[in-house]
Amino acid sequence: MPHTGPRHMTPDDFRRFGYAAVDWVARYLEDVERFPVVSRVRPGDIRAALPSSPPEAPEDFEAVLGDLDRVVLPGITHWQSPNFFAYFPANSSGPSILGELVSAGLGVQGMLWQTSPACTELETHVLDWLVELLGLPETFSSASAGGGVIQDSASSAALCALVAARERATAGAANRTGAPGRLTVYASTEAHSSIEKAVRIAGIGSDNLRKIPTDDRLAMRPDALAEAIDADARRGALPCMVVATAGTTSTMAFDPLRQIGEVCRERGLWLHVDAAMAGTAALCPELRAIHDGLELADSYCFNPHKWMLVNFDCDCFYVSDRGALVDSLSILPDYLRNPATETGEVIDYRDWQIPLGRRFRALKLWFVIRYYGAAGLRALVREHVALTRELADWIGSDPHLEIAAPPTLNLVCFRHVHGDRAGATLLERVNASGAAYLTPTTAHGRYALRLCVGQATTTRRHVEAAWELVRREAARVAAGS
Amino acid sequence: MPHTGPRHMTPDDFRRFGYAAVDWVARYLEDVERFPVVSRVRPGDIRAALPSSPPEAPEDFEAVLGDLDRVVLPGITHWQSPNFFAYFPANSSGPSILGELVSAGLGVQGMLWQTSPACTELETHVLDWLVELLGLPETFSSASAGGGVIQDSASSAALCALVAARERATAGAANRTGAPGRLTVYASTEAHSSIEKAVRIAGIGSDNLRKIPTDDRLAMRPDALAEAIDADARRGALPCMVVATAGTTSTMAFDPLRQIGEVCRERGLWLHVDAAMAGTAALCPELRAIHDGLELADSYCFNPHKWMLVNFDCDCFYVSDRGALVDSLSILPDYLRNPATETGEVIDYRDWQIPLGRRFRALKLWFVIRYYGAAGLRALVREHVALTRELADWIGSDPHLEIAAPPTLNLVCFRHVHGDRAGATLLERVNASGAAYLTPTTAHGRYALRLCVGQATTTRRHVEAAWELVRREAARVAAGS
Repeated sequence: MPHTGPRHMTPDDFRRFGYAAVDWVARYLEDVERFPVVSRVRPGDIRAALPSSPPEAPEDFEAVLGDLDRVVLPGITHWQSPNFFAYFPANSSGPSILGELVSAGLGVQGMLWQTSPACTELETHVLDWLVELLGLPETFSSASAGGGVIQDSASSAALCALVAARERATAGAANRTGAPGRLTVYASTEAHSSIEKAVRIAGIGSDNLRKIPTDDRLAMRPDALAEAIDADARRGALPCMVVATAGTTSTMAFDPLRQIGEVCRERGLWLHVDAAMAGTAALCPELRAIHDGLELADSYCFNPHKWMLVNFDCDCFYVSDRGALVDSLSILPDYLRNPATETGEVIDYRDWQIPLGRRFRALKLWFVIRYYGAAGLRALVREHVALTRELADWIGSDPHLEIAAPPTLNLVCFRHVHGDRAGATLLERVNASGAAYLTPTTAHGRYALRLCVGQATTTRRHVEAAWELVRREAARVAAGS
Repeated sequence: MPHTGPRHMTPDDFRRFGYAAVDWVARYLEDVERFPVVSRVRPGDIRAALPSSPPEAPEDFEAVLGDLDRVVLPGITHWQSPNFFAYFPANSSGPSILGELVSAGLGVQGMLWQTSPACTELETHVLDWLVELLGLPETFSSASAGGGVIQDSASSAALCALVAARERATAGAANRTGAPGRLTVYASTEAHSSIEKAVRIAGIGSDNLRKIPTDDRLAMRPDALAEAIDADARRGALPCMVVATAGTTSTMAFDPLRQIGEVCRERGLWLHVDAAMAGTAALCPELRAIHDGLELADSYCFNPHKWMLVNFDCDCFYVSDRGALVDSLSILPDYLRNPATETGEVIDYRDWQIPLGRRFRALKLWFVIRYYGAAGLRALVREHVALTRELADWIGSDPHLEIAAPPTLNLVCFRHVHGDRAGATLLERVNASGAAYLTPTTAHGRYALRLCVGQATTTRRHVEAAWELVRREAARVAAGS
């Protein structure tokens, strides 16, 4: 008896269920503002609502979609709420969601040019567009010796940059015989945890990551950087990379790229610039000072999945010497050989990243840039920056609050004047209200609240409401009530 | 003058354009069988169809969707075609595509339990379901000391396993002071290139990856493995991990897990089992021999995005000691501190992977398991395996062809009897026809064609047509015409 396959979704069913899924998402985005921002479930609640064993027989798709409301929604912390001011945003938009849908529908693997030329070429093309849109150095354009690629995250971008830097410093020896124990890497005390994670993964070791002190704005001190590198070199270490941050996660501080770049150039170190959050601001010419000196960098990344309306994952990673990156990550087994690769005329993005496989992520980026236009993307940034400046003024004028670090772009860090404990209480009350979501950090050694204005649909009304809530609760905390 | 934000897609427009995007995907899936499987564009063709600069003003979404046909489709190699027999498949399905849509719509970050408990708990739960569905060892269940997590790919899973193994072998010293040069790793000569890539990235070095010889079925020889480990240990090396493959990429060979596992246990090495393609077969009890001995493994992965109808990316990665993994990858900065993490009662999946951020990928896996049911998923595997057995018989009986490696599960490797050059010509002609897509490999030192039956909608009719094409062209090549 021949085996017969499973019941697939017919194209007509796909249309019907697809419309229902689109309706569900549309309704979610209409309603999201009304949900408590932070999920209120307790550990185990979601699992308790699920059957302990998987279904043996097929279920109706209607039942599956229905469980989104019953099982999933209570366990969602609403990153797409306009009242989400926590962490950094992961904003999104209609065209991006639909780009992701089309990408899933095409279901191609972009590991090689050959395995879908459009997946590779659209990505190269749109990343070149972003060089123009952000005014990035021409060295990052694919027309030069460099180029861009989409990574899942700034963490992976940092790891790729580090591996390339490690190989440049060791003339490829680390890939063959292992990372020598004398490699050293530099980043400020305020750099993202992904840098230390990359240093560990790459076999360099946390002890060899020098955390360079910062100035009163929490930006890396280039003099301290130079001293640290030189001291290491004198004792026989092999300094290989500096990571400068344009917009730190904790307080949105900007390391001085030009001075750091000069330190790196003089000493032959790879400079990686992490602008995961802030890079999007460079869409606006008046904000491009955040990238001053970027032409001295060997690699750079920013995340359209944070503040440029492209849903996660979409980190744009650029190098000025693509050969250095590809040489570090390329292995060509027989089962991947193909005529296009052998001509050397094409880009095979598998050699620009850690995984082999890759989705067609350029589609959503292309959809977003076209649907909004450069003008629309700039309008988003300008609105958020303007609202943040107003908010910083309000906070600065409040008797119970004080600014904890210089506000830049779309982040304000502030403290309660009664101290760390009062700040933590304030945060807890604001978040418990469900009306806004903020997260804490430590700035200059003291507890601070962070408020980041970056969600797609956050407007004046939401910032005003969040401020009113913060102001009222800060007064209550001050009054001891 | 207050800044005003961009023109967002209204919920009503999202419905309208969403339906149009769903229609486009439905029509694509209806038509995909009729397209030449491999794209026929030449390098640069796609970019030439795109404007050199990004748009300043917003464009209509209709125009964007329209360009899918004009610009994108010609550059697509159709991984979702039922005539795709190349590489390993990256199959997909209606419920998976819609799961991806809903995930993009929710737009949550699952880095911490707290940042969306449903994203974490549904993932843990569905990965436990798969322990049951595949009959995996209980040590991989979250109810034990182990557990599962979704990675983007088997490459990333291997790297995570290697970092954990490296830290276990060095008692955490590699993360602090760098990978010592004496670490060694073992995999067969047939293991996937991602293993060597991971060994390089992790700072261990290709020279310290021992490529263990294989037997006449191209499976790793446990005796040779034991000898290599012992020789390394005698000269003072620090053997840390063995990667066994259940279903190699080149020929779908199965390393003997039980014997390899015993070698590892006796010597204290971490055993990682890569079943990226083949693991799905374990849905069927009669095929579970591929996992015999898996209870001796420290980690394991398989890819529902290959053969289980979940669109890329979805690699299920399991460890038997989650503490070893988390200890290797965890760093907790102040800006990620939160009450749930501090209780220690929740899983924070950021500590199970390389990136920090993560999408809600469990949704599509949940949708697929429920829509098809275990019975439906098994039916797919059984149909493909049965068709492959028939195909192998046909090839074995053909005067111009011969089997190049023992056919297992859903892969047949074969040669042209007139030698390597004839085989390459055969492959070229089959692929140039547009009616099927196969890729080459090297088996026992000789050129071979691979034909893998794994696409969602591939049925008897497609396999018969592909066989007729191969048979006819093989005869033509043999006749010198």
